[in-house]
Amino acid sequence: MKFYDCGTAPSPRRVRIFIAEKDLDIDTIEVDLRNREQLDDAFGAINPHRTVPVLELDDGARLWDSNSICLYLEERFPEPNLMGRDATEKGVIGTWNRFAEWDGFAPVGEVLRNTAKGFRNRALTGPVDHAQIPEMADRGRRRIAHFFTVLDARLGDSAYVAGDRFTIADITAIVAVDFAARVDESIPDGAGNLTAWHDRVSARPGVVP
Amino acid sequence: MKFYDCGTAPSPRRVRIFIAEKDLDIDTIEVDLRNREQLDDAFGAINPHRTVPVLELDDGARLWDSNSICLYLEERFPEPNLMGRDATEKGVIGTWNRFAEWDGFAPVGEVLRNTAKGFRNRALTGPVDHAQIPEMADRGRRRIAHFFTVLDARLGDSAYVAGDRFTIADITAIVAVDFAARVDESIPDGAGNLTAWHDRVSARPGVVP
Repeated sequence: MKFYDCGTAPSPRRVRIFIAEKDLDIDTIEVDLRNREQLDDAFGAINPHRTVPVLELDDGARLWDSNSICLYLEERFPEPNLMGRDATEKGVIGTWNRFAEWDGFAPVGEVLRNTAKGFRNRALTGPVDHAQIPEMADRGRRRIAHFFTVLDARLGDSAYVAGDRFTIADITAIVAVDFAARVDESIPDGAGNLTAWHDRVSARPGVVP
Repeated sequence: MKFYDCGTAPSPRRVRIFIAEKDLDIDTIEVDLRNREQLDDAFGAINPHRTVPVLELDDGARLWDSNSICLYLEERFPEPNLMGRDATEKGVIGTWNRFAEWDGFAPVGEVLRNTAKGFRNRALTGPVDHAQIPEMADRGRRRIAHFFTVLDARLGDSAYVAGDRFTIADITAIVAVDFAARVDESIPDGAGNLTAWHDRVSARPGVVP
């Protein structure tokens, strides 16, 4: 296997943490997103969708979706379990993972990519340039506020995002929360459950920055 | 189990097809999205995220993400297999399913929700109102065009979206393609692979409209 990574980007961080929690050793190739290496011909031959992370399998197949890479690794290296042991766990963990991705990770990306100078005309990942839409940043900030509220309430009922143990839903959620700091949105004062969870999860050896 | 559905909405259609392909019989409750029943208190008690589909399990847990509902059903009712039999299949099918969702389904939703009068202030699903951003419609149409191009090329190499057999990736892709017709975006002339696949998949008894 080969793992195409970028140390400063949040999507591959999701997989980096997953790999570290499983204590796997996978050959890693750094892709320089800051200098747009993902748009070079060489990288286009690896992933025409122009995104990282990518996991190249030994048979040459390439997975270019973070969650599907984790699904593959979970199946090959089942312990420690991060995506559910039975149907109900898989469904519940999948649902909260999706919540963290869609309600947390996605709006942070919307704010950053539609405002930062470095993403001018790169408002979406992928091979096609798209102009920034500044109104999406305002909407994204409202979405992030809602995400923090819901997540804090959830963590009042539950030690971890998807239940009583650490799973992929915690990985996606902490990557989203840390990513939010890049657009100056941090855990609100008074969100005590979320703050306590963030401290606890950040201290895990696998949760590399 | 109870399945909360809406016969006119595309997200629950993904699960309806999945259920039909597995030939399952699940109690179904229709939620009247046109009259915003999802915003009523009664539905809020079922899904505070205010979306359909929802699958309520026999232990009372509720899954409110289409893909996670399918993951649960796949685990409980493994045949016919729709999400992969081994690690590589799971990874490849998951990746193409994600492509169909993110590059196809999502931009159609962007166009519709940011332009249609019926979605004024409802530019996103969920409990929070968001104003429409008309620029997202132009961007969404460019994204749909790209989706059709990539999918047509893929179906030149492969009988089905994720390989040589029908999977969840075909379900998400056909729901996205049919949903696109609601914003007047149809398969382009000359996209022969995509047209042939669409005809073939639409003829499956499980692929209910």
